[in-house]
Amino acid sequence: MKAPLQIAVTGAAGQISYALLFRLIAGNLAGPDQPVFLRLLDVPGAVGDMQGVLMELEDCAAPLLAGAIATADPEEAFHDADLAFLVGAKPRGQGMERQDLLAVNAEIFTTQGRALDQAAKRDVKVLVVGNPANTNALIALKNAPSLSPRNFSAMTRLDHNRVVGLLAAKIGCPVAGIRQAAIWGNHSTTQYPDLHHALVQGRPALERVETSWYRDEFIPAVQRRGAAVIAARGKSSAASAANAALEHMRSWTQGTPKDDWTSMAVCSDGSYGIAEDLVYSFPVRVQNSDYAIVQGLPVNEFSREKMRLSEEELILEREMVKHLL
Amino acid sequence: MKAPLQIAVTGAAGQISYALLFRLIAGNLAGPDQPVFLRLLDVPGAVGDMQGVLMELEDCAAPLLAGAIATADPEEAFHDADLAFLVGAKPRGQGMERQDLLAVNAEIFTTQGRALDQAAKRDVKVLVVGNPANTNALIALKNAPSLSPRNFSAMTRLDHNRVVGLLAAKIGCPVAGIRQAAIWGNHSTTQYPDLHHALVQGRPALERVETSWYRDEFIPAVQRRGAAVIAARGKSSAASAANAALEHMRSWTQGTPKDDWTSMAVCSDGSYGIAEDLVYSFPVRVQNSDYAIVQGLPVNEFSREKMRLSEEELILEREMVKHLL
Repeated sequence: MKAPLQIAVTGAAGQISYALLFRLIAGNLAGPDQPVFLRLLDVPGAVGDMQGVLMELEDCAAPLLAGAIATADPEEAFHDADLAFLVGAKPRGQGMERQDLLAVNAEIFTTQGRALDQAAKRDVKVLVVGNPANTNALIALKNAPSLSPRNFSAMTRLDHNRVVGLLAAKIGCPVAGIRQAAIWGNHSTTQYPDLHHALVQGRPALERVETSWYRDEFIPAVQRRGAAVIAARGKSSAASAANAALEHMRSWTQGTPKDDWTSMAVCSDGSYGIAEDLVYSFPVRVQNSDYAIVQGLPVNEFSREKMRLSEEELILEREMVKHLL
Repeated sequence: MKAPLQIAVTGAAGQISYALLFRLIAGNLAGPDQPVFLRLLDVPGAVGDMQGVLMELEDCAAPLLAGAIATADPEEAFHDADLAFLVGAKPRGQGMERQDLLAVNAEIFTTQGRALDQAAKRDVKVLVVGNPANTNALIALKNAPSLSPRNFSAMTRLDHNRVVGLLAAKIGCPVAGIRQAAIWGNHSTTQYPDLHHALVQGRPALERVETSWYRDEFIPAVQRRGAAVIAARGKSSAASAANAALEHMRSWTQGTPKDDWTSMAVCSDGSYGIAEDLVYSFPVRVQNSDYAIVQGLPVNEFSREKMRLSEEELILEREMVKHLL
């Protein structure tokens, strides 16, 4: 039997984690031969809820669950963590300005960055799901100086999957026939869902749809999909977010297919002229558990402008939390 | 590519279904090569919520999801269904007597039994999860005269898994080392969690624990586990129930291991002296998609009494809904 993978999950009493944890113990991330040890973190007031989750995990009698703890102490949660899903974040409250939202979350991710720095494995893979995810990830990595920025990422896989799902529905083709979708920028309404490199059954996606549909309907639909789900369900996306988090980590640990890539928000190295020291979503390929930003894609004027807009937003967010970096 | 499995799920806007559906499209039930077509059913007032769930399913870009519909029409939901998870049921409201609860659910399961009778595949496998599950299943099968009672079952797999999980925790052994746990009777507080035949790493489980612990602590703990989860989480078990439903269907379609069995509530054939025409939980083995009640287990006085008590409760429930059978 392999040694258990130590997996930390924050916001463990919340809905996204609830959708994630039971898939982790079913082997959906690392396969049917890889035991997992779950390290649940949430605020002190949620420890009771987490106990309930632990009971339900036990009630699955899952052979892959090697053990689980629930704690409000970040260092305990991140102790020896191989993987960390940073799901928990403070949602925007009534009357809260963007700056307030950034500030309250900055505090959480400063603490968690430091705890990861102290406690996690040196090759820990950290995925920030909690919003504002990109800037939260930037704060966390800046507060973890003994880890590489490459240990950190933020999630745009849900947006990426939405691109694939919505495009497949529009064209009426199987999702499996779509390759090389890409999300650039911030996981926010400025994100840029890019179809210029996408293929549908090997042919350019943009040959299959009207440019006006792509620009005026598709892009806004992807950008505002989260709000549309809330409008329909009355609750924010949880199971689809958990699914994307799981797939993000699976791609990061097991690699991307030879003929495809995925989207991950990672620390910019200046690729495509995007300012360094931003956590920005790029198309990436993964091999040997290491990601590489896809290089050399042609970028037209339309794309350039969209990419720049999202970059600007991220620079502004960084400005608002610069005292914490 | 195989033809998609047509899977109906009722109560599709509820929490158990929400935990179940995303595992179905991840291949957790029928494997990574078996596409699924999801047929969601809920009450007319929940159609909007179901649309939100459909959006999230689409947002997973899951290659195994061949399609999905959401409807309030049972015949549409059950059309050509291979598998039906009857998850939806009316929960007990304030001031509601047991008889009222039975009556309001009886109506639902009468309708659904008839719709299954009309619309489903002739070898459909129906699992009732919604409570009171055993009697709901009895009502459904009695209203589906053109199907065999053997097409129907009710879920005690969650109780079964709880037995395994709690016993493993007590002894400090892996859950995978436990075999031949059994749940007899009703999925209610009268259920009888039986360790007399259970093995821990090949040795009798009851040699590993005190009889007093088994009788006075373990049995009530399993019987009241659902309430304990609610007390901790503030919500009833959803993900662990969904997990059990999935495992129940997996066992029923793919078989039980050679050296083990599982627990399913099925139409009694008089085995162990249990009255016929009750949906009663027995230890069962499954081969070739067909279950058989495990025969010939010795039953001592203690077990006999517990099994009888739960049988009595089910006879009483049947009495209360007899005009519908």
